[in-house]
Parts: sequence; structure tokens; C-alpha cells
Amino acid sequence: MDKLVILKVGGNVLDNPLVLESVLDAFANSGNKKILIHGGGKIANVLMEKLGVIPNMVEGRRITDDKTLEIVTMVYAGLINKNLVAQLQKRGCEAIGLTGADANIIPAVKRPVKEIDYGFVGDVYPKDINANTISSFLTMGLVPVCAPITHDGEGVLLNTNADTIASSLAIALAPFYAVNLVYCFEKNGVLKDPADENSVISEINPELFAEYKASGIISAGMVPKLENAFKAIESGVKKITICGPAAFYSENGIAGTTIVA
Amino acid sequence: MDKLVILKVGGNVLDNPLVLESVLDAFANSGNKKILIHGGGKIANVLMEKLGVIPNMVEGRRITDDKTLEIVTMVYAGLINKNLVAQLQKRGCEAIGLTGADANIIPAVKRPVKEIDYGFVGDVYPKDINANTISSFLTMGLVPVCAPITHDGEGVLLNTNADTIASSLAIALAPFYAVNLVYCFEKNGVLKDPADENSVISEINPELFAEYKASGIISAGMVPKLENAFKAIESGVKKITICGPAAFYSENGIAGTTIVA
Repeated sequence: MDKLVILKVGGNVLDNPLVLESVLDAFANSGNKKILIHGGGKIANVLMEKLGVIPNMVEGRRITDDKTLEIVTMVYAGLINKNLVAQLQKRGCEAIGLTGADANIIPAVKRPVKEIDYGFVGDVYPKDINANTISSFLTMGLVPVCAPITHDGEGVLLNTNADTIASSLAIALAPFYAVNLVYCFEKNGVLKDPADENSVISEINPELFAEYKASGIISAGMVPKLENAFKAIESGVKKITICGPAAFYSENGIAGTTIVA
Repeated sequence: MDKLVILKVGGNVLDNPLVLESVLDAFANSGNKKILIHGGGKIANVLMEKLGVIPNMVEGRRITDDKTLEIVTMVYAGLINKNLVAQLQKRGCEAIGLTGADANIIPAVKRPVKEIDYGFVGDVYPKDINANTISSFLTMGLVPVCAPITHDGEGVLLNTNADTIASSLAIALAPFYAVNLVYCFEKNGVLKDPADENSVISEINPELFAEYKASGIISAGMVPKLENAFKAIESGVKKITICGPAAFYSENGIAGTTIVA
């Protein structure tokens, strides 16, 4: 089985040009078959503010109305995605920027309205992902760079969580590749003490996770990230790491947290 | 030789949702192998105005400074491109949205500064186009949807004329396909009298073109379009048509102007 690296870079990494350059250097030089998935970063918020579109948050989650969808489509699928592609091409890496709509690689379902109407938000299921098409791109030597935008197959684009795209792609491709899924974000890994960047938990399994969650050591934002990760490991993904950018470009960088079954 | 339709839709067609729907219906139902190339439309200008970016025109041509490049990247490669892809996917057409940077299909050269510095504008040469990669996509059953953004291979995105992208792709793919290049714009074709939509010149060759140009019948805006077209015909492109959207969706639509060698 060929190895496949799936790297997700979070918004805070995208917002720091020098750090991003180093991560892209390392990614371009990493193994043969690879996929980059990016989040949003501050740029979408800055543009919303300039255009007078007021972020609509309900219980800490963003509602994607039509104006917001236009902005995230422009920023994620246009500005960020194409600049990442150009930066990787510069490094000799045959990047191809894609949303879930392109070649229909990631069909999604508009989130059903229950208590909250999230608007143009797409939920993704690994079974719907067109693994064959993605595999064909990888076989051609291409490196997909995925923006967190999907579609419903009826002409409507949808805003989709980049972490979910990463884990769904990893699960969908696990039958064909030994998938190494890496979440790169602004912390050094999963921390025991959020204030101490050196308190990285080097390895975590479901039992430890339950324990840390019960005792409140693992905080709210990290819980869905880890739940996604455990789901992926259970579904055949070979290895998952949550780490900071320094894990890529510094010899002294902390390796981050490895998720094990 | 397989047939290949390359359709370029201009900004004025994109700006009219009903007309665009009909053109996309016809395009989705046309032959097997096809490529869509789109221009910009009014949206970029509207966004520039909202963001207080003042269009910088020199001798009627737009200068692309860094702010303008950001905006056209967002609008062309993001908003317009991904909505066209989603609309085609809805019609069962396996569209994949691409800029010239994606898979390095269209490398470009930043326009050299002579009297005028056009800024981030890319010139494209048919010999540089990666016809093999585009052919692979077509063989996979994919339908490339190309935004008028290219790159210099050094990490810099470039704004590029969509007509030039269309003719360059047609020339680069002519050795492999019987290419039918169609420019769809807001007029019914090349007009003898700009005020009379029924005065379409049904066929034009280089001699007629020289004659019409000398007598002022063919106006300034049409000259570079036709020069591009004649270059493409001389370089092996099978057929070129300049027509209005009605040529696609109306039985009574005027077929437009055919360019012949």
C-alpha cells in the first residue's frame, strides 16, 4: 500500500506568512502522494468587516447566510487556495486547487434545520467522497489542495468545516493508501495545560481521552477535533498527529500528539 | 481525431443569470469533450468599488496592482468559477474549476514593462500550455472550467485576458483534437453596423477582415478578438465562431460569425 500524507493547516498557520512558508517547504519535500487541506484564517473576517457583513454567531457557531457564503467562496476557494497552489508550484510540487464541487470530489448535504438554521453549511460523509477521482489525480502526480467549500449537487455551494473534510478524505482513502493524517495548528499538540506549550500529551487513546475529558483537562475546542480523529482511526486511517508548525521545520520542534486506537 | 468544444463566455453573458442558465444547459448537453473559459463580468468592479479600490486605467487598459489582483483572484477563481462548476455539476457535467496555476496547466510570463507597467498581468504562449495534463482530464471525462488567472511559476498569480486563454488553449490542443472554438458574447456576432444586431457578417476571412478594418466597419474592440481568432485558425484550430448566447438556446438564434482561413 502506498503512503498518503493528508495535511490540514489551520487558519492561524495561514495567517503567519513566515510559518506558512516553512510548512509549505516541508510539505513540498514530504513523500510522493499527498493532499493539503486548508481552513480560512482571518482574511474572511477582515473582508466581511470591510463589506459590512456582520458575522452571525449562534452558540459560538457561525451561521452562513448568502452574503457570508459569497465571501468564504471568494476567500477560501479563490484567494487562499490559489495562492497556496502558486506557492507549491514554485516549490516544484504539482498542486491542483479544488473545492468539493470540482470533479464532484466531495458532495455534501446542506445541514438540516433543527433548533438552529446554520444556513449554507454542508455536512460531509466519507462514503460519498469520490475516492477514485482523487486517486486518479494522485496517480497523475498531482497534489490536491482542498478548500473547505463543498456543494449539494443541485448547484448550491456550501461552507464546510476543514477538519471534517480532512478526516472524511482520510477515511475515504484509507482502503487504498496507508494514510497519515496530520492536523497542523497554532499549538504544539493536545496540551494538558492550555497555558503551557510544553505540556503536550505525546500519545492519546480513547480511554485517556475519556479520562481527560471527564476531568476537564481537554477543553471544548479540542473535543470535536479529537472525536473526529478517533472516528478516523477506527475507520482504518493509519496514523493521526495533531501538532504545531514547528513539528515540520524545526529539529527541536515538539512532535505533537499521536492518536492511537 | 476527437472533437473538442472550447467555449468562452464573456462578462456580459455571466452578468445575465437567465441567459447564462440557457448557455450552460446547451453547453452541458453539447459533445463529449469540452472546456469552458469565463471572463469577469461586473462583479469584480462592484467589489472594487465597495472596497474603495479605484480602477487604474491607462489608455483604456486596466492596470492590475496588488489589491486588484487580490480582488480578481477572489471573484474570478473563487466566486464565478466555483458557481459555474456547481451549476454544471447540477446538469450532470463533471466540471472541474481551474486557473492556470492549477496543475500548472497555463504558465504565464508577467508582462514586461515598456511604456506602461500593467502590473500583475500575465502573457500566455500556446507552446507553454500543458496540453498533456488537460488531455488527461478530458480523457477522465472531466470538463475543465478555466478562470482567467495564471501564474509565473515563482509563486505569483497573474491576471490574464480570457480571450487569449481561449485561443491559446485552442492552439495548444489543436494537434490532438478537432477544436471548435466558440466566443459567446453580448452581440449576435461580428456586426457590419454596431447598432444593428441583424447585420451579422456570417463568414469572415483575412482578406475581408483587412477590408472591413480599413473601412472602419470593424471597430476597435473587435480587432484584437479577430486577430486572436485568425492566429488560432492559422495554427490548426478547426473552426471558430463568434456569436451571441441565442445561437445556443434559440432555434431562431443567429448562428454568428464563422472565421475561416
